[in-house]
Amino acid sequence: MVSQIEFVLKERNRGFHLITDEIISKLPSLPSTGILHLFIKHTSAGLTINENTDPEVRFDLENIFNHVVQEGEPYYTHIYEGEDDMPSHAKSIIAGMNLSIPITNGKLNLGIWQGIYLCEFRNRGGNRKMVATILS
Amino acid sequence: MVSQIEFVLKERNRGFHLITDEIISKLPSLPSTGILHLFIKHTSAGLTINENTDPEVRFDLENIFNHVVQEGEPYYTHIYEGEDDMPSHAKSIIAGMNLSIPITNGKLNLGIWQGIYLCEFRNRGGNRKMVATILS
Amino acid sequence: MVSQIEFVLKERNRGFHLITDEIISKLPSLPSTGILHLFIKHTSAGLTINENTDPEVRFDLENIFNHVVQEGEPYYTHIYEGEDDMPSHAKSIIAGMNLSIPITNGKLNLGIWQGIYLCEFRNRGGNRKMVATILS
Repeated sequence: MVSQIEFVLKERNRGFHLITDEIISKLPSLPSTGILHLFIKHTSAGLTINENTDPEVRFDLENIFNHVVQEGEPYYTHIYEGEDDMPSHAKSIIAGMNLSIPITNGKLNLGIWQGIYLCEFRNRGGNRKMVATILS
Repeated sequence: MVSQIEFVLKERNRGFHLITDEIISKLPSLPSTGILHLFIKHTSAGLTINENTDPEVRFDLENIFNHVVQEGEPYYTHIYEGEDDMPSHAKSIIAGMNLSIPITNGKLNLGIWQGIYLCEFRNRGGNRKMVATILS
Repeated sequence: MVSQIEFVLKERNRGFHLITDEIISKLPSLPSTGILHLFIKHTSAGLTINENTDPEVRFDLENIFNHVVQEGEPYYTHIYEGEDDMPSHAKSIIAGMNLSIPITNGKLNLGIWQGIYLCEFRNRGGNRKMVATILS
């Protein structure tokens, strides 16, 4: 069995954002056992899972990713869309744009500290289009 | 068809660990064709695939990840769980916490040099909870 | 329902390569709704999604990955297969070797700027073996 929906995440500031509740609110009722596949239809944002409690983790992740892929490197050639653009492409690859989560007993089977993150790597990323596919 | 099991990986030292055989030993008999989805229910560890032979690869990967995301950066704010904590969150995102592997002729269809890795990014990560879901 | 094929991507130069059309040409007709899972059976290459238009993005990504994981680090111990070898293992983990894409209305549901990338991290990687699994 497969079901699928598309939806839009409203624009957010650059940074890592906890979106577990927003994702769950978009989904139809889940099967007893299966997989939720999430996909973001963009090349300058990411989807991942990390700590769901302390906002300092998300703050530090933004800084760590800015450190790993820095803006304004002299060797960048794709620079006409702003200093945040080329780093955002690399960060999207590093964080990933697709994510699969087990469904168990009709719920997402996340660890107690895990939450779903939208990684917004652009200064002004706009709305972000998503596809959720449920396999069971 | 979907089947699913949960199990625990025993505590390991910080580093990259080859766990292919341990994973296979936990699984029920596999379908002829399908996908094995593995998920680690933690925010400071990762699951990935890499070289299954030379232990030096795993040794160097630990050092490379420590180089990419260094401990003790002055800009970290999430520091009360130890110097290894915030880097481990970032490394978990970089390595990934979910992994899907094709099943072919009733076996994991890995390349001849590929093995499944547990990436333990904490100094003392403890047991790690896993979910394996088989889609066919 | 699950279907699966294996195929080979011809040798490419080191770098990031847009392979969307080549992948689609290998696939059987797609179901109306489902997931395409792609897997590369190697530990020194990657599969990901990024910008499908400007070749400068792919050029810069090669340089960014070379910056994140540099060749010739004095702490490398796995060095007997060339200076590009150990970095290629780490880059494969960072980019990922497995990728799932939603299928909608019988087509890959990529964003308008998204294309599938082969990340060739070796100087001479040779042919690359792939497994494509379609779940519906």
